Amino acid sequence: MRMGLFITFEGPEGSGKTVQSRALYEYLQERGLSVYLTREPGGTGIGDQIRQVLLSPENAEMLPSAEILLFSASRAQLVGQVIRPLLEQGTIVICDRYADSTLAYQGYGHGLDIELLRAITGFATGGMRPDLIIYLDIDVEEGLRRKRKTAEWNRLDRKEIAFHQRVRQGYLEMAAVEPQRWLMLDAARPVAEVQEAIRVRVEEMLEGRAEDETHREHRPPG
Amino acid sequence: MRMGLFITFEGPEGSGKTVQSRALYEYLQERGLSVYLTREPGGTGIGDQIRQVLLSPENAEMLPSAEILLFSASRAQLVGQVIRPLLEQGTIVICDRYADSTLAYQGYGHGLDIELLRAITGFATGGMRPDLIIYLDIDVEEGLRRKRKTAEWNRLDRKEIAFHQRVRQGYLEMAAVEPQRWLMLDAARPVAEVQEAIRVRVEEMLEGRAEDETHREHRPPG
Repeated sequence: MRMGLFITFEGPEGSGKTVQSRALYEYLQERGLSVYLTREPGGTGIGDQIRQVLLSPENAEMLPSAEILLFSASRAQLVGQVIRPLLEQGTIVICDRYADSTLAYQGYGHGLDIELLRAITGFATGGMRPDLIIYLDIDVEEGLRRKRKTAEWNRLDRKEIAFHQRVRQGYLEMAAVEPQRWLMLDAARPVAEVQEAIRVRVEEMLEGRAEDETHREHRPPG
Repeated sequence: MRMGLFITFEGPEGSGKTVQSRALYEYLQERGLSVYLTREPGGTGIGDQIRQVLLSPENAEMLPSAEILLFSASRAQLVGQVIRPLLEQGTIVICDRYADSTLAYQGYGHGLDIELLRAITGFATGGMRPDLIIYLDIDVEEGLRRKRKTAEWNRLDRKEIAFHQRVRQGYLEMAAVEPQRWLMLDAARPVAEVQEAIRVRVEEMLEGRAEDETHREHRPPG
């Protein structure tokens, strides 16, 4: 069975994930590859309904535990209904935020038990992990400033600077533990430069995949 | 700190949980006690939004993992926002379905890992368990027949008989393990008889609680 490539974008608020994930999607599409772009929370009919509950400013009384479980429910639906079937067809799937957001925001940010979060996340995803996590790093205050200029105001933006600093620290620690899976980029650099660095890494992975296939095809039978 | 009493109603579809939980609520209210009636999924503003996602017939593609996580999110919000604060004020809280529904429906019914479900449920509730679980037992086909006559048709009703039989079996097993916490009643008996059996047990618990308090009050200082 030929498998696609699963690429996620992570980073603090205002780090440019949405712009960069779309740019990568368009680049790969122009290259003639089968590619799919989605986001969390959301990405399915059910996930979009959950997204509305999560992002509604009316729901300010939401508890951290409920928030985690809603993100996880949206993720479970997205993996089972969209990501896994597409990867099995050989499609490249790009996701704007994924499981590592839960660990960074709810684990490092809110201080909840990381191992329990990993168990819940593993349950939601059936153990599906990205082949590549593109982490766009940015100074917290700079990121929040950018975000507030450009995007809709929502409940998630109201959390304080200190929280976002713990989130960033969490991302940096996770990236340090698995450097082969994480591509860390400085999001303060010009958008075009960041875009180029992402393309270079993804092209390397695609070449690696093509070589694997060539080897499989040339392998003697039996 | 004086603690209330936490009573949940469990049982297969059509076992009369809603009728019996309301009857107990009204009885205790007439007795002049502080009592609160709620239900799952729902019971809070956020929980009611989640309930809509869970019960919408349009969401038939919902995966079991997403369903569990949505029920758990609604529960987390209900426990943190409503049940725990009320119990701490000494109120009797009655809940129509609670955590044992997840174990029965998703664990025994859908065959998912019970220990993992207990971990997710424990995370959602912060370990809050009922003082008394009133389990209304009924033959599966009889229960479904009753349900279809009287209540709104929703997605949860479309699951097949075999599934509901596994659910019932799950309830029976859980009740057998903790007989002191579960009150199992035959829901095929007349409503008034079932109601009376519930009142007798709850009155016993209230007397036990009153005695505990008398002992505390009479305890010599120091």
